[in-house]
Amino acid sequence: MLEHGGRLQQAAQRYEIPRERWLDLSTGINPIGWQATACISTASWNRLPEDEDGLLEAAEAYYGAPKILPVSGSQAAIQALPRLRGRSRVGVPALGYNEHAHRWKQAGHDVVPVAIADFEAALPGLDVLVVSNPNNPTGDRFAPDQLLDWHARLHARRGWLVIDEAFVDSTPESSVARFTDREGLIVLRSLGKFFGLAGARVGFVLSSQVLLQNLAEWLGPWALAGPSRVVAKAALQDQTWQKSTRQRLRRDGGRLADLLASHGLKPSGGCDLFQWISLPNALAVHESLARQGILTRYFGATPSIRFGLPAKAEDWQRLETALSVSRGVLEIAESARDEARREARQ
Amino acid sequence: MLEHGGRLQQAAQRYEIPRERWLDLSTGINPIGWQATACISTASWNRLPEDEDGLLEAAEAYYGAPKILPVSGSQAAIQALPRLRGRSRVGVPALGYNEHAHRWKQAGHDVVPVAIADFEAALPGLDVLVVSNPNNPTGDRFAPDQLLDWHARLHARRGWLVIDEAFVDSTPESSVARFTDREGLIVLRSLGKFFGLAGARVGFVLSSQVLLQNLAEWLGPWALAGPSRVVAKAALQDQTWQKSTRQRLRRDGGRLADLLASHGLKPSGGCDLFQWISLPNALAVHESLARQGILTRYFGATPSIRFGLPAKAEDWQRLETALSVSRGVLEIAESARDEARREARQ
Repeated sequence: MLEHGGRLQQAAQRYEIPRERWLDLSTGINPIGWQATACISTASWNRLPEDEDGLLEAAEAYYGAPKILPVSGSQAAIQALPRLRGRSRVGVPALGYNEHAHRWKQAGHDVVPVAIADFEAALPGLDVLVVSNPNNPTGDRFAPDQLLDWHARLHARRGWLVIDEAFVDSTPESSVARFTDREGLIVLRSLGKFFGLAGARVGFVLSSQVLLQNLAEWLGPWALAGPSRVVAKAALQDQTWQKSTRQRLRRDGGRLADLLASHGLKPSGGCDLFQWISLPNALAVHESLARQGILTRYFGATPSIRFGLPAKAEDWQRLETALSVSRGVLEIAESARDEARREARQ
Repeated sequence: MLEHGGRLQQAAQRYEIPRERWLDLSTGINPIGWQATACISTASWNRLPEDEDGLLEAAEAYYGAPKILPVSGSQAAIQALPRLRGRSRVGVPALGYNEHAHRWKQAGHDVVPVAIADFEAALPGLDVLVVSNPNNPTGDRFAPDQLLDWHARLHARRGWLVIDEAFVDSTPESSVARFTDREGLIVLRSLGKFFGLAGARVGFVLSSQVLLQNLAEWLGPWALAGPSRVVAKAALQDQTWQKSTRQRLRRDGGRLADLLASHGLKPSGGCDLFQWISLPNALAVHESLARQGILTRYFGATPSIRFGLPAKAEDWQRLETALSVSRGVLEIAESARDEARREARQ
């Protein structure tokens, strides 16, 4: 299994800080998610889930896509899609959500990590290109026209463009959802991030009818829990919450970027739900924050850290304090190292 | 997709009876399932599910098995297991839960339908044998010693014995759960039937560590919804409910068998959660009951019907009335047919 954010229990053990004392910023999940408690009927636990419960209609209205398949989190689609093609050359972001590369490799494809700046140049050599828009964790964005052009060129040789739109909900104008009746254009959406319903395991695949039928057959019956379907439907229909949440996330995303910058951690990229900082001593910053009970996501391959959004006023305050402490500690350590080096040279 | 029970919405459309007026006896799900509402924390919807939440310990205590993997309903395991073996000769019950055969075939194996009486004779020619204990829908049972003997013989040539114990919870002495550290012995359990939590999509695979690791890697992270994990844990720990439910199901299972027999539908087999009747005019009985708003499960390959348990007193009464009406209607139809035949001969 690959490592992911959200492993709070592991962090609690490793840093010997009880679970309930952590501020978990290790995921890009909206910390003030849609609230699910009021609307669950007992029957949804006890009966087999049924397709004809209105979830599909709610999703069609929200995404504005012609054909949609609900799946058990976009993870389910990330795992299944590679099984629906013969051996292919598959381009994935060199720095991106690592499950894509992992699952295409696992299914026997030739996976080519591509730097985002090189997507255009790499395209002629690929059968499939996987793009996240915006990209996680770097925050890179792609214009719909650009994506549709890439799709057309891939499709001309029966290729696929897979677009993971897990973080697109707060900027829906960036989505290509409405074009997904085009053969070979596959969009993944999720209720885990913007809606903050990561525990519900609900995602959607937007694509052509034929592909969705193959995918549905592969994934089998009753892929989503009944109560998850009930919650998903209600969240997708709650336009008031969606509107105010978009505004709040825009505000909070800017606030997080400013806060980090003011503590010497100017974001290299990000979106409303996370900020990403590439820096040589990323591991030291990550560990210094963890020792203060703040969990961030550290990426070793390109030393960098991702910060999710704090929720409450006290969480913001706690992050600010921890960033100050961390900066002080790291500066002391740095000057101690400098001194030791000077001594060694003398 | 294969057809399954529980398609109430489809039946409502086909027979033009509003959904809420049906008595659904088409599944083998306990109609008085464990009640889930009280215990769901909001956090379980909003956070990514974590493995270290106590579900595994609760499952280990309940099943008494050495190693356990939670899966998103035993359906998830039924789909995944065929992907973890090279091409094999796989015996499945000629009349049994049809997803097993379907998924082994789909994965490219050579599937051999075997009559239950012929399992012993077929064993030398198989790499994998799939057994349901008790079998669904026929109710056939297998002694643990018999199963362990079959396993040993299959294992001697690196074969598997897969035992679907979806309906074993009310007779736990029939389970081989405690032997599942034996390489190549794979037991599937589910919270969908006895616990009546079909909507939660929670099952467990009991097997050797190596197989469970492969399966976990195949199934990927966060396979179960967080709230489903919370509910599953609480249900597995609720021994008081389990004990009284076992007693109630035994009583109700007997009552259903008696009721059917007294209306000319003597069960050919069954278990506490369902009764199964093989008879030439099974389709006519199924349709006659459906026209009265009672949904049963019809099996076309071997003309037969399966009845699940009614829940409330009024449901029992309604079934009794419908069975009387149905018998009357079918007898009139039968004598009309006889008369027509006599006339045709004259």
